[in-house]
Amino acid sequence: MNIERLIRKNIRKLRPYEARELKCRAKLDANESPFEFPELLSASLDVKTNRYPDPQGTELKKLAARRWKLKTENILLGNGSDELIYYLILTFGGPVMYPTPTFSMYEIIAKATGQKAVGVRLDRDFDLNTERFISAIKKHKPKLIFLSTPNNPTGNCFSSDRIFAISKATSGLVVVDEAYQPFASKNGFVPFLESMENLVIMRTLSKIGFASLRVGFLLSQSSVIEAVNRVRLPFNLNSLSQAVAKEVFKNYKVVMSRIKEIVKERDRLYRELKNLESVTPYPSEANFILFKVRDASRLHRSLLRRGILLRDMTSQVKDSLRVTIGTKEENDLFLNSLKSLVK
Amino acid sequence: MNIERLIRKNIRKLRPYEARELKCRAKLDANESPFEFPELLSASLDVKTNRYPDPQGTELKKLAARRWKLKTENILLGNGSDELIYYLILTFGGPVMYPTPTFSMYEIIAKATGQKAVGVRLDRDFDLNTERFISAIKKHKPKLIFLSTPNNPTGNCFSSDRIFAISKATSGLVVVDEAYQPFASKNGFVPFLESMENLVIMRTLSKIGFASLRVGFLLSQSSVIEAVNRVRLPFNLNSLSQAVAKEVFKNYKVVMSRIKEIVKERDRLYRELKNLESVTPYPSEANFILFKVRDASRLHRSLLRRGILLRDMTSQVKDSLRVTIGTKEENDLFLNSLKSLVK
Repeated sequence: MNIERLIRKNIRKLRPYEARELKCRAKLDANESPFEFPELLSASLDVKTNRYPDPQGTELKKLAARRWKLKTENILLGNGSDELIYYLILTFGGPVMYPTPTFSMYEIIAKATGQKAVGVRLDRDFDLNTERFISAIKKHKPKLIFLSTPNNPTGNCFSSDRIFAISKATSGLVVVDEAYQPFASKNGFVPFLESMENLVIMRTLSKIGFASLRVGFLLSQSSVIEAVNRVRLPFNLNSLSQAVAKEVFKNYKVVMSRIKEIVKERDRLYRELKNLESVTPYPSEANFILFKVRDASRLHRSLLRRGILLRDMTSQVKDSLRVTIGTKEENDLFLNSLKSLVK
Repeated sequence: MNIERLIRKNIRKLRPYEARELKCRAKLDANESPFEFPELLSASLDVKTNRYPDPQGTELKKLAARRWKLKTENILLGNGSDELIYYLILTFGGPVMYPTPTFSMYEIIAKATGQKAVGVRLDRDFDLNTERFISAIKKHKPKLIFLSTPNNPTGNCFSSDRIFAISKATSGLVVVDEAYQPFASKNGFVPFLESMENLVIMRTLSKIGFASLRVGFLLSQSSVIEAVNRVRLPFNLNSLSQAVAKEVFKNYKVVMSRIKEIVKERDRLYRELKNLESVTPYPSEANFILFKVRDASRLHRSLLRRGILLRDMTSQVKDSLRVTIGTKEENDLFLNSLKSLVK
């Protein structure tokens, strides 16, 4: 039987997102936090193994609502933000628009759901090119515009003014993906939820120490949440992740102090990279740094041989690698290896 | 801003699957196991909170493969079977066909993804009506046919011969949902995976004691698995559920002994219900019993007032309620209350 023939046309050329597992001394490729928080896991022991999870995630939503000064009706929980991207596109359709380069899942999921995916090139400073965006909006009439700020893999925040301008120009929704917002110096968009009617925000626990749990949050006005909830699987967030995620909010002070430590290390690493003649780091408001270097892919492999795993970004940004901020020791290991390799 | 206008047409009439949380003495509404297995939860303590889950779920797949005598390439993991239904429909499209009455998510997810949903009425014995099915196949040319066997909410297994006949008549895939197979007296369809080219099987941990985890398995030939994997989110199964699910397979003997206990209780409950003049139970191969009774919805409410929660099935099968098999004590509580109410 020819299975290929049965596959929907939009899926035929799609290849799965590659997430490889490599043994290494310093895993600096996936924008994870270097800090574990095993003490919180004991919350999972209270779970009733045989019962379905709370379908609404009420307690977790309450804690999230308190943190972001919202109501629970403004929050939808996802099995990671990835799932929320799926739900948004299933609910509102396409075309789906996003800047390039950016997080690859917007395009992948748009294509998986059979929607048109439109990338709009960022300007030279990796900021939004408002003119180019507005003309693309006029042409394609997107239902959803995904703006990751701080942006992955470039690390910068987009100018708020430009986000506002794009939001005004579209009759669709603007989804501000704030996965890396906790590491940024500027405030996020939560305060604008009331005044910007077409604003949707995504937050996640993945970058601040809890990628294992797969917990994402969609924040928006209640009519958007209610709409997206129609396509949500009733038990999309398992009981164990709900239990531990509640502890994350209860222990947010510790989480915050670790975020501060990462930001401090990021700024140190940036300065050190800037001092290297053959390396050009881009300023970052996230928990990673993108840097330009000659023979980037070869350097990536050389570092890997020394047990240091970075992300090769050359297919998205010429000659560039992305390094996640690790512990001080991991960052030093990376720096010293880099110095010896690029001379 | 009018959000309703932005919602895709196929979603506008869609309402979310209602999963309510009600306090009760005997929760016999959701086909969960009555038995907890808290000892297994300690596996979740080994998880590295800060790292993404194994994107392939390799170790869990190996254990599942050993159990079902398959290769890991024949298995895809889902965040519950629900997610696998989503992925199947996103990969192969519609029309989506299923018997009625059956598990409601096939229809809900088909509609959420914008696909045509075609229900084909079961015969008087709740078995597949082959003739009606084959003529519906000719007319609608479904890409996917979902057959839940044992079927929910009717409890019976479909005749294998009829499943084979339907499989031969369609040029699409036949998805045999074996969520309740562990409670059935007949063997499941895993042995037919090699000979039935268009066969896909779904299994789950939800009914055998681990609904909290949200772990589902898609079993099929590798070309089907590879195709569905293209739309799978890379980290769809969190680390905690993976860790505990591995323990489930390692402790399958205990799980099996509990399944046997539930089957024994089911058969006792069936006999007791059959002895009641005003109650007509349908034979069951699952962990629940559907029964006919006068004023079913009123009885449902009366039982609830006594703290006994059943599922009201009157909208799907006239005058019927569905009771999940609980512990001996819960079943007796239900039986005694029922006797006093229907008298």
